[in-house]
Amino acid sequence: MPLKIALAQINPTVGDIDANVRKIIAFSCQAKHQLGADLVLFPELSVTGYPAEDLLLRQDFVIQARQATVGLASRVPHDLDVVVGFPELDEAGNLYNAAVVLRHGQVLVCYRKRALPNYGVFDEQRYFSPGGQTCIFDLQGVRIGLAICEDVWKPDTVADNKTDGAELLLVLNASPFHAGKIHQREAVVASQGRTLALALVYVNQVGGQDELVFDGASFAVNHHGEVVYRAEEFQEELGVVEYAGGQLQKSHCAPCYRAISSEYKALVLGIRDYVKKNGFQGVLLGLSGGVDSALVLALAADALGNERVTAVLMPSRYTLEMSIEDAISEANALGVKYCVIPIEPAVAAFSAMLEPVFAGADRDVTEENIQARCRGTVLMALSNKQGSLLLTTGNKSEMSVGYATLYGDMAGGLAPIKDVPKLLVYKLARYRNGVFPVIPERVLTRAPSAELAPDQRDEDTLPPYEQLDPILELYVEQDRSAAEIIAAGFKAEQVLKAVRLVDSSEYKRRQSPPGIKITSKAHGRDRRYPITSGYQGDKLGHALDADTKQSTAAE
Amino acid sequence: MPLKIALAQINPTVGDIDANVRKIIAFSCQAKHQLGADLVLFPELSVTGYPAEDLLLRQDFVIQARQATVGLASRVPHDLDVVVGFPELDEAGNLYNAAVVLRHGQVLVCYRKRALPNYGVFDEQRYFSPGGQTCIFDLQGVRIGLAICEDVWKPDTVADNKTDGAELLLVLNASPFHAGKIHQREAVVASQGRTLALALVYVNQVGGQDELVFDGASFAVNHHGEVVYRAEEFQEELGVVEYAGGQLQKSHCAPCYRAISSEYKALVLGIRDYVKKNGFQGVLLGLSGGVDSALVLALAADALGNERVTAVLMPSRYTLEMSIEDAISEANALGVKYCVIPIEPAVAAFSAMLEPVFAGADRDVTEENIQARCRGTVLMALSNKQGSLLLTTGNKSEMSVGYATLYGDMAGGLAPIKDVPKLLVYKLARYRNGVFPVIPERVLTRAPSAELAPDQRDEDTLPPYEQLDPILELYVEQDRSAAEIIAAGFKAEQVLKAVRLVDSSEYKRRQSPPGIKITSKAHGRDRRYPITSGYQGDKLGHALDADTKQSTAAE
Repeated sequence: MPLKIALAQINPTVGDIDANVRKIIAFSCQAKHQLGADLVLFPELSVTGYPAEDLLLRQDFVIQARQATVGLASRVPHDLDVVVGFPELDEAGNLYNAAVVLRHGQVLVCYRKRALPNYGVFDEQRYFSPGGQTCIFDLQGVRIGLAICEDVWKPDTVADNKTDGAELLLVLNASPFHAGKIHQREAVVASQGRTLALALVYVNQVGGQDELVFDGASFAVNHHGEVVYRAEEFQEELGVVEYAGGQLQKSHCAPCYRAISSEYKALVLGIRDYVKKNGFQGVLLGLSGGVDSALVLALAADALGNERVTAVLMPSRYTLEMSIEDAISEANALGVKYCVIPIEPAVAAFSAMLEPVFAGADRDVTEENIQARCRGTVLMALSNKQGSLLLTTGNKSEMSVGYATLYGDMAGGLAPIKDVPKLLVYKLARYRNGVFPVIPERVLTRAPSAELAPDQRDEDTLPPYEQLDPILELYVEQDRSAAEIIAAGFKAEQVLKAVRLVDSSEYKRRQSPPGIKITSKAHGRDRRYPITSGYQGDKLGHALDADTKQSTAAE
Repeated sequence: MPLKIALAQINPTVGDIDANVRKIIAFSCQAKHQLGADLVLFPELSVTGYPAEDLLLRQDFVIQARQATVGLASRVPHDLDVVVGFPELDEAGNLYNAAVVLRHGQVLVCYRKRALPNYGVFDEQRYFSPGGQTCIFDLQGVRIGLAICEDVWKPDTVADNKTDGAELLLVLNASPFHAGKIHQREAVVASQGRTLALALVYVNQVGGQDELVFDGASFAVNHHGEVVYRAEEFQEELGVVEYAGGQLQKSHCAPCYRAISSEYKALVLGIRDYVKKNGFQGVLLGLSGGVDSALVLALAADALGNERVTAVLMPSRYTLEMSIEDAISEANALGVKYCVIPIEPAVAAFSAMLEPVFAGADRDVTEENIQARCRGTVLMALSNKQGSLLLTTGNKSEMSVGYATLYGDMAGGLAPIKDVPKLLVYKLARYRNGVFPVIPERVLTRAPSAELAPDQRDEDTLPPYEQLDPILELYVEQDRSAAEIIAAGFKAEQVLKAVRLVDSSEYKRRQSPPGIKITSKAHGRDRRYPITSGYQGDKLGHALDADTKQSTAAE
């Protein structure tokens, strides 16, 4: 008889132990009764969801999670092995990132994660002590090992399982998405399988959690390192693989994922889960006629359905007629309701109120920011009155250089494209138009403008995005210095300007809403810079004067 | 001849390696030439400042820090041992939190920190590998060991130094302030000295760095665990102790610090350094006539001098005459210039603009928030135009329960009293009035009100602060559950309300400006909660309906 192993790619809610347990029971029953599985494998820390952050420091939380995990044993089919992850508190007060095998109404074995990631978005050493040994158990004569996420990236840890007799390794994961990550994961795991002649079954969490999106994309590789099963990405799924004759058998394989569609789906799921898990009925956003808000509108409508999205047009004297036309046609193309609230009365009121104190002062970015903040106030008023979530429409290029107004266009509860560089915004917009056209071509071809001053263009203030985006990728994502970036062939003036703007706008980013991480390094918990910093890079920066922190051109 | 050891309690700037090196040279010269010291001890990571956060992931940064450290050897007096901290990158690419002894123009020895804190505000395991051994060196026949901060809290690590022959232990520190921390530090170190019959010299960084303030408060204990030297707190200082006849001799001891004055000084230094190190000329703040803004005004004037502070009064129809009178007398008492900008025109403009979309809807917190956001917009306009830093005046009690308006009274670059609970706000105000009266008595006795609606009082919405503050201390600082807090004697209704408000306002805190940590657990990098969380505590919370995240009463 082949051994049937089910892969339960579930979408838990962080902290909602009851709901997660109900989901685990439902998937377990389905695995047994519909798929005839002998074992079902759930993601890392499936009982609590991942990452639970400082909830893990609360004793009541970890006690409740343990009780729920032990209690699960009697609530799932007894003739099914159920492998779930939970935080395990030992009697000495140490906490482990653990997994148990439940069998016949009891806990059969418990494994403690050995490799605890503490880089990037991960803080596992803040919470957990490392485990020190393998955990091999027997099911119908097959020797099975357990590993949790980071463990499988460590050749030694995987090899220990082979040494200790495992022929099959089950891996529980909560591995967040970023571009290229899915292929990287398959490559690493396949390499371990091939090198050690070991079969591996890899189940990943799916779903959005604040800044992170988990893509699922679970898979299995055989002793030769061949992918024999691949789940769909960005959705819950219960799959099954068979292990027979010492081999993992070829099963269903979803086609390889396309980078651009993975990124689009990541953003859609990130929005949908943030809205759903935080109990909002719908969202609203300011629609300017520019490409950023056009993309966010399409993402929101795709995530929630058009009836749960409201667009708000807030023209000023600097808004071109073309922008209003394009915004309206975007809303109409998606069937999204919109309203128009011109901001001139509020702008005029502030001008009059400030006139006595500003008397004689030249017009500068202050007046631009007032417009943006009038829009922010209108949007937040609608959000408060309707209980809708305000989506912020700024992209990663803007957030990196601080080309945005704090409390203005940065206002909102979620910033869906905060980790999407401007050039990728265009690509995603074209990808979406390829499915069904919703964004007018003109929006994709005209020069970007904040429309806060006459004839304004982003390029008046910033390097062209074709230059800026690769510079930012090297500086923000790859931690390269200005000197290295210049040596790579970029213009010194543009590099120094970009680097200076990134450094001096950390205070703005610190107050920005959470975004959805889709690159290898996102602003937020992924990239943790001090606001107060005297670092001038490799001294090249001295060529330009440092602005004070709150008067950067873009603010 | 006694051995003369100088304690250089310096205030470095994170990232400004050149300036920190110049300061180290100046203090070293003074130690040699004015104090006749044989050795001068600097704080942990003194070359880069602490904490440098993700700057430490930049190769250019750590290379520059190493070059500066090695270069120091030839720039300090050659007949003086100089002990400084720096991040040490080894050839395998591992980074250590290290300290070197510079002597005769060269690096004599290098020690690598063994205990790396990764809790609370600390993320050292994100950056550093641990060292594995002691580092003992000889100076004039005295065997001296080195330790770095967390090391000295580990009895085994300290004992290793004694075992390996040290009679004197030099400890480099960057230990941030919170209430009670100074006495805790002295007690732990004195206990190590007494237990092991070891003399210890403890030098701490001083100065503000974003959310943290380092108090200095350096000290030395002899073999009997007696404090024989104590520096002033919250200021740079160069002290000296003598080691003779196998004993650390009694030296200058500042009087024991008083809790309330330490807290006040911490806030003053936190403001001063944030303003100075970020290059602002001055600050402004909204002055309401309430106690919070009154305290922030006094702190700012004490930190910067009254001529660098501007107060802005922004009355509305709900502002009592008494509030305006009190605000003016506060500004006058401190000699701070003020302006008055009534917000009614902007409020009226927004009301008219929103009337068509709000038609028929009841008045609710939306209208209160609009007033707060009009004030935020006025203040930010002044900040932008003048290049001044806007100080936010919300306290910890409000921030904990979300009783504040995002982009309204929460707008600003620094929130000085964000970690000060309301009852402590009153205590600090009375303490300041005890030095010289600047806050009218009436401000300290009238019921707190946001003045955003007729006859509004905080107690209409929140439990009285006498109840709320201790509940919040148990929940936020001590991670106790609602059930435990109720069992401790607090009213269930108040506890459940407070807990629910804390949980549902995480999204607001995530967008709040940095505050200055003065309690054992501050909101910010110290307390890291998910925004999206389904955790309902110990189920008691189910008794109350959960609001959606953006329509909490206070917002």
